[in-house]
Amino acid sequence: MAQTTPNHTQSVVGWAAHDPSGKITPYIFKRRENGVNDVTIKILYCGICHTDIHHVKNDWGITMYPVVPGHEITGIITKVGSNVKNFKVGDRAAVGCLAAACMECEFCKDSQENYCDKIQFTYNGIFWDGSITYGGYSEMLVADYRFVVHVPENIAMDAAAPLLCAGITVFCPMKDNNLIDSPAKKRIGIVGLGGLGHVAVKFGKAFGHHVTVISTSPSKEKEAKELLGADEFILSTNAMQMQAGKRTLDFILDTVSAKHSLGPILELLKVNGTLSVVGAPEAPFELPSFPLIFGKRSVKGSMTGGMRETQEMMNVCGKYNITCNIEVIKPDQINEALDRLARNDVRYRFVIDIAGGARE
Amino acid sequence: MAQTTPNHTQSVVGWAAHDPSGKITPYIFKRRENGVNDVTIKILYCGICHTDIHHVKNDWGITMYPVVPGHEITGIITKVGSNVKNFKVGDRAAVGCLAAACMECEFCKDSQENYCDKIQFTYNGIFWDGSITYGGYSEMLVADYRFVVHVPENIAMDAAAPLLCAGITVFCPMKDNNLIDSPAKKRIGIVGLGGLGHVAVKFGKAFGHHVTVISTSPSKEKEAKELLGADEFILSTNAMQMQAGKRTLDFILDTVSAKHSLGPILELLKVNGTLSVVGAPEAPFELPSFPLIFGKRSVKGSMTGGMRETQEMMNVCGKYNITCNIEVIKPDQINEALDRLARNDVRYRFVIDIAGGARE
Repeated sequence: MAQTTPNHTQSVVGWAAHDPSGKITPYIFKRRENGVNDVTIKILYCGICHTDIHHVKNDWGITMYPVVPGHEITGIITKVGSNVKNFKVGDRAAVGCLAAACMECEFCKDSQENYCDKIQFTYNGIFWDGSITYGGYSEMLVADYRFVVHVPENIAMDAAAPLLCAGITVFCPMKDNNLIDSPAKKRIGIVGLGGLGHVAVKFGKAFGHHVTVISTSPSKEKEAKELLGADEFILSTNAMQMQAGKRTLDFILDTVSAKHSLGPILELLKVNGTLSVVGAPEAPFELPSFPLIFGKRSVKGSMTGGMRETQEMMNVCGKYNITCNIEVIKPDQINEALDRLARNDVRYRFVIDIAGGARE
Repeated sequence: MAQTTPNHTQSVVGWAAHDPSGKITPYIFKRRENGVNDVTIKILYCGICHTDIHHVKNDWGITMYPVVPGHEITGIITKVGSNVKNFKVGDRAAVGCLAAACMECEFCKDSQENYCDKIQFTYNGIFWDGSITYGGYSEMLVADYRFVVHVPENIAMDAAAPLLCAGITVFCPMKDNNLIDSPAKKRIGIVGLGGLGHVAVKFGKAFGHHVTVISTSPSKEKEAKELLGADEFILSTNAMQMQAGKRTLDFILDTVSAKHSLGPILELLKVNGTLSVVGAPEAPFELPSFPLIFGKRSVKGSMTGGMRETQEMMNVCGKYNITCNIEVIKPDQINEALDRLARNDVRYRFVIDIAGGARE
């Protein structure tokens, strides 16, 4: 496979990791010319996702170095291909995890491109032309318009960036479980109050559900309730609180990407309840049989979202004014931010100010 | 807690394990008098379930010795209490895993007694009166009529016995997934061809589905196809067969009660497919995140069935003439049978001839 193809003529400034030390340094690379189906985006902001850590350190053994991470991208359209009808120069645009899919299978036809088995990601993927994809830790992106969404005018471009991964990742399982804009009010649990979890709490409260945050950190209780409006908090290391919570929740979203047992979490679900899992620890989850079978419970996976769902989520965020709580950094602070993220030392998402404050 | 109460006046011959060696010996114990809500059953046959092994050896640390196992019971009604309207002396009757439940909660009211959190089992349970329950490895049983079902006239009492656990355990998840008597024909997989799995194959074929048996034993291929009519066989230790089977099945029922990883099995499911788990290994399953989230797949637990579903299953078995393939043994062969079952050396269920050939 080639890293670039002959039409990769545009030099771009970015930031890349070059080996499993994961250290990020400035990196000049080439992007393809803007094709008929492409839009070119001047990147303003890019969120830092936990997945970026896995990739820069090659935790999953699939990293193709050098890797330019970043799949929570917002920016301004600067060029559109001749086939592109739904974007124009100057539009506020965003790109998430997906760069390409087959566009022909049942999933692509239903805009569930995220489950196409030919899916390629925004970074560390292999594009249709054979080139390796580079992500949003860079000043400019060329993207197929079918993998680009609009950003509503009323939400800030920096705080919107993490919606493209953290947001859609929690939106889809909540939508699948009829929790988005639904009249039925449910008791839902959110495990982990990080980049993903805090957006899930916001969605849950926006739609009137009773939201319980479940966390290993006692310090999260105050912020869960006071900052994010959660109704209850369960400290998962406290056996009494876990016991009191048994069979109380209709739905739980587990956002934790470290290895853990799903058994104690399942016990919090009512009979027939669903635990949606969106984290991807390197090691398998432990799934004890008893809480699963005695409660007829389900553990369901979900991975990001399709493009129609992603635009729907952006529109919902515009309507309800939902964005992420972020800490904006400069590109020369990426390594420090990755270290702090690995220690969960961020409330709740780092966003890189790629353009140095250039206004939207 | 008392093992018996003052009304436990009836001496019964049974067979019990007395310690974790699991050795079964004859054991005389007391049962309660037939109460107003009770029926007395002369036991003809009792199946030997894998759960019996877990209990006699105290694998789950919950055994109350002496334990009289057995929850796959068929026999003839010999007495009915004054409140009992739906059974009469001479009726063919059957008792499964459940002895009691609260009868008041939402699950009991919906005849999902198996998910009542006050559920008590047919053996090693604690009945309403405080007595410990003793199961079907015995000549007579007194049971609350609400936990007894009718056996259709056209199916044999010996081959029907294992339906009360093996049968209902696979029937319910198949029903939950619209596979019973459904016009939509699906591609389903059955993991493990033992007491549970072979009944699941029969249900699958009775309703016209495409059935793939997945097993670690090459010797099971011939019997799966020729004896039970399975359409395909995948040897789960064969990487090429597992690779070829990826994303081909709508639903999989995993009946294996030994520890194993669910990852390779999940890969066989289409996107959005469901893996129903009914086994209860002592150690947790391994659940790798990637096949779960990349395929939006579900792992769902299921434990036996409610009483309405159990009667429904018996009626379905009568209609389609479905019973279990069994090997009938005498009570003095129980220890040998348990040993052979632990080695999976039975096609497919041992049934104890409790009454020594007394006719129905």
